[in-house]
Amino acid sequence: MKLPLKGIVPPVITPLINNDTLDVKGLEKLVEHLISGGVHGLFMLGTTGEATSLSYELRKELIKRTSELVAHRIPVVVGITDTSLEGSLEIAEYSASVGLDGVVIAPPYYLPISQDEMKEYLEVIVPKLPLPFLMYDMPGCTKIHMSVGTIRRAKELGAIGVKDSSGDINYLYSLIQEFKDSPDFSIIAGTELFLPETILYGGHGAVAGGANLFPKLFVDLYNASVEQDIEKIRVLREQMIMINDLIYNVGKHTSKYIKGIKCALSVMDICDDYVAWPIRRYGKEERGKIKQYMDTLNEIIN
Amino acid sequence: MKLPLKGIVPPVITPLINNDTLDVKGLEKLVEHLISGGVHGLFMLGTTGEATSLSYELRKELIKRTSELVAHRIPVVVGITDTSLEGSLEIAEYSASVGLDGVVIAPPYYLPISQDEMKEYLEVIVPKLPLPFLMYDMPGCTKIHMSVGTIRRAKELGAIGVKDSSGDINYLYSLIQEFKDSPDFSIIAGTELFLPETILYGGHGAVAGGANLFPKLFVDLYNASVEQDIEKIRVLREQMIMINDLIYNVGKHTSKYIKGIKCALSVMDICDDYVAWPIRRYGKEERGKIKQYMDTLNEIIN
Amino acid sequence: MKLPLKGIVPPVITPLINNDTLDVKGLEKLVEHLISGGVHGLFMLGTTGEATSLSYELRKELIKRTSELVAHRIPVVVGITDTSLEGSLEIAEYSASVGLDGVVIAPPYYLPISQDEMKEYLEVIVPKLPLPFLMYDMPGCTKIHMSVGTIRRAKELGAIGVKDSSGDINYLYSLIQEFKDSPDFSIIAGTELFLPETILYGGHGAVAGGANLFPKLFVDLYNASVEQDIEKIRVLREQMIMINDLIYNVGKHTSKYIKGIKCALSVMDICDDYVAWPIRRYGKEERGKIKQYMDTLNEIIN
Amino acid sequence: MKLPLKGIVPPVITPLINNDTLDVKGLEKLVEHLISGGVHGLFMLGTTGEATSLSYELRKELIKRTSELVAHRIPVVVGITDTSLEGSLEIAEYSASVGLDGVVIAPPYYLPISQDEMKEYLEVIVPKLPLPFLMYDMPGCTKIHMSVGTIRRAKELGAIGVKDSSGDINYLYSLIQEFKDSPDFSIIAGTELFLPETILYGGHGAVAGGANLFPKLFVDLYNASVEQDIEKIRVLREQMIMINDLIYNVGKHTSKYIKGIKCALSVMDICDDYVAWPIRRYGKEERGKIKQYMDTLNEIIN
Repeated sequence: MKLPLKGIVPPVITPLINNDTLDVKGLEKLVEHLISGGVHGLFMLGTTGEATSLSYELRKELIKRTSELVAHRIPVVVGITDTSLEGSLEIAEYSASVGLDGVVIAPPYYLPISQDEMKEYLEVIVPKLPLPFLMYDMPGCTKIHMSVGTIRRAKELGAIGVKDSSGDINYLYSLIQEFKDSPDFSIIAGTELFLPETILYGGHGAVAGGANLFPKLFVDLYNASVEQDIEKIRVLREQMIMINDLIYNVGKHTSKYIKGIKCALSVMDICDDYVAWPIRRYGKEERGKIKQYMDTLNEIIN
Repeated sequence: MKLPLKGIVPPVITPLINNDTLDVKGLEKLVEHLISGGVHGLFMLGTTGEATSLSYELRKELIKRTSELVAHRIPVVVGITDTSLEGSLEIAEYSASVGLDGVVIAPPYYLPISQDEMKEYLEVIVPKLPLPFLMYDMPGCTKIHMSVGTIRRAKELGAIGVKDSSGDINYLYSLIQEFKDSPDFSIIAGTELFLPETILYGGHGAVAGGANLFPKLFVDLYNASVEQDIEKIRVLREQMIMINDLIYNVGKHTSKYIKGIKCALSVMDICDDYVAWPIRRYGKEERGKIKQYMDTLNEIIN
Repeated sequence: MKLPLKGIVPPVITPLINNDTLDVKGLEKLVEHLISGGVHGLFMLGTTGEATSLSYELRKELIKRTSELVAHRIPVVVGITDTSLEGSLEIAEYSASVGLDGVVIAPPYYLPISQDEMKEYLEVIVPKLPLPFLMYDMPGCTKIHMSVGTIRRAKELGAIGVKDSSGDINYLYSLIQEFKDSPDFSIIAGTELFLPETILYGGHGAVAGGANLFPKLFVDLYNASVEQDIEKIRVLREQMIMINDLIYNVGKHTSKYIKGIKCALSVMDICDDYVAWPIRRYGKEERGKIKQYMDTLNEIIN
Repeated sequence: MKLPLKGIVPPVITPLINNDTLDVKGLEKLVEHLISGGVHGLFMLGTTGEATSLSYELRKELIKRTSELVAHRIPVVVGITDTSLEGSLEIAEYSASVGLDGVVIAPPYYLPISQDEMKEYLEVIVPKLPLPFLMYDMPGCTKIHMSVGTIRRAKELGAIGVKDSSGDINYLYSLIQEFKDSPDFSIIAGTELFLPETILYGGHGAVAGGANLFPKLFVDLYNASVEQDIEKIRVLREQMIMINDLIYNVGKHTSKYIKGIKCALSVMDICDDYVAWPIRRYGKEERGKIKQYMDTLNEIIN
């Protein structure tokens, strides 16, 4: 994997036909859509990828096919988050065996654990990992907001970066401060709205869910941020906010973010919009709204 | 399974030698300890049983061996909580295949879901279950505190009871009120301290972690509550509080509850005290304290 | 004040005609209603009494008139909660000057403070208090859930009891455990539903909002609890739960509890239902519901 | 008051000699320090100004003396946050009577209220206000995070701006989006770290606590942000972060922010460091640290 990981790394959704079946053709179209949009890497099996809702067979099939489809054109990293150590290692080893580039670790997420317990967990799992790894802070799903100290310990153990999906910009800024003398340690925003700030202040990129839909927009915004072109940032950022306001906001449950992206990709004729249990895809009415919003966005976004 | 499930149903810890290996002999001793203590049923693979930290092979081995050891002397129910529908069904089917009596469902616990999503999830999973099922409210680990309405829907779909581990006694009282005209629907306290209140006001039993250590004490307290013997309740309740104050309170992390019980069982020479990742067993110093506290408790508890 | 404070001590609502004007006649009727119902004391200017919404003049008028009306028939304690030390002392001194019996201290509630800061605050305010004092734990309004250690410190400084309105029964039970060897230190439940448990396990009474409406019911439930008459407790407790379910549950805001009690008192023709800003009294529709519910309750409650 | 309010508006600390006595000379020095540092306005009696801890006499004395000292050189706004409507109006009227420019409203903060109740409260208080008003979102102290809809309602009723101290940058960005077509409605960051983002994306200023110490630094950072000078922003922002890391971080309680600023001002020989109850000023050890940190900062900050 080309280090440091930087730029736009979409948390790729997992195209499904039903709870057991990958949408193989959809995955192929999606991968080409993303690569032709200029993204710098792919993050498979994250929260947006519904990793924890999928059986192990399905996760492995996704990993294998993605590896074949990407064929090393860009780096691919894979989420190995699990509640069982054995489960995490199984996915890590499989990812290595099919030639992928790295793995992403979030804390085991059933039992609430402390910072000390997370550090000890890293000490036992890291030596068993066959690939480089990034850390993934996602307290909304894992319950623990990893401290800067825990990330520092992960770096000592070999971590090559951190993705922050806490939504807490002060934490993101603290990470940038903490590691400013280690420019190869990737600080990646998991909240796409923080992409410009992340780059302007010294971070490296964003795992942007919206890049599943509009990869080029996010790549352009990344480039404008690198170039400190404030006027261009303002224009592109407005478009990004529109995606957030329209596509991630239909209905009322937290799951609307995943449902919105999958539905929009289906409207774009890229892949099926099936969502794995415990979440259900949108019904006809919500799909109608997403279709209309995508028309609006397609007119505005270049 | 004899309905309604009632009385003392310990959330049985999973005796381990290491992260991959069941402490088979320990399991045997533990099962006999519990049955000879008079407990009314066993709950395997709950939070106390570290279900989510174990590989599927290990979970299945535990289920099979427990079934053989118990040999239908008392009912055994099994937690099938998982983030993937397929995973939950796999454990449910295996439990049925080895002759166990029921399963226990908690919400999928990675993605935060709504009450509506939980109800829809029940509608899809329940028809596939091969065994009777209870609901399990455990918001500290699953993030969702199931509403009384969600439990009512579960009952309509066939649930035979609910275990409440929310720690929220008003919720427990609401469940008792809601289902007071359905005496066969088991209301089980998951917070052992609420055992007397639960029984005095119309509930059915308790999934009491401390019953791993002192099964007879909890059975006696259950009986005193059924008999409304307030003086006896007071005496036994004081002893239960001592267990809580001493054994669940060594060290500072949430995991001290599981570590304390496993360590005490090891001190009692019943089974190994290994705890699965991401938690580690107590070190020498904490073990010394637990040993001393068990001496104190053994003198007091009959 | 007769020590220890025990039994039913209603958190008396403040009858108002408008934001500036006490409903003097209503106060008189309310005080007689409560005393003739057998309550053991009165708690003025608590959360239910809307203390913080009232001007200082109004608070003082309420204190003075209550003192005159009660005329030492039962003890009266007064909440002095304020964000400013001077404000708290002003109310305390005024309460002493008109012959009331004690004051009730909750933490200053704007700036979030720590347990240590609360202890230091007690050390400065207690020596200036002209009357005996109780502590008042109300984290939903004050943000700090006072630890058992903080209450212990208050007791060392002279506190004669504690009222727990945290809704956290484990905390209430911890207080009872902690002070079981000090039978003169009053442990008072602020959550009326916990009245029987409090008394059965060694506490002293309840500050029960519902006693504004049905003082005799709460006094009877207190007596049944003292006598350990479980059957009687069950019957009266069901009635108490009905009050909670019906009267405190109209509309959707937290303020419905205060609005419900005031509206019901108005329906009973005891006092006006005006509620001080930032809360507004019920409109016609909600009042209709309360009226109907009171008819139901009056048929059932003796 | 010159509209819109913009630029650096420090939340001025209240210099005290003890709990009852203003540090009059300190106030004079502080006001001159701030005005000569170039700040664009003053915000008295905010959270940093310990408004709620002060008696009404003291608040009024502060207001009067500040008005005399500033003598209309820059606009001065005054926090009127109180739990009682009468209290808020008393301060508002007094502020108008001594010639100040505006008031700042936060929600009544004892009883938890809903968005609807906050809107109704605004409808009753706004017509009684003698001065222009800004809204103040401070959920950490008031418990309610005012929705964008509530702020929109405030604007309809006449609000001239909003100060956001929620620490939630997404909320701040939502406010900027919502009111982007009303350039005279001031969007003011209450979290000083968000100053550059606020200005770059269309907001108007910051209520920056650190400007009590280093007014010129914040004014320079504001100007660099207006000029979109990213390199200059980076340099000055690093200095601002140092203030946060060093001065607001001594000790462990939330109050360390106020104590740190007051202690540093005392080290600068501007005013006394007394902090009103329930908070205590730093002891000798912490003061030593602040002194040392101020030496460091004075070397770096121009």
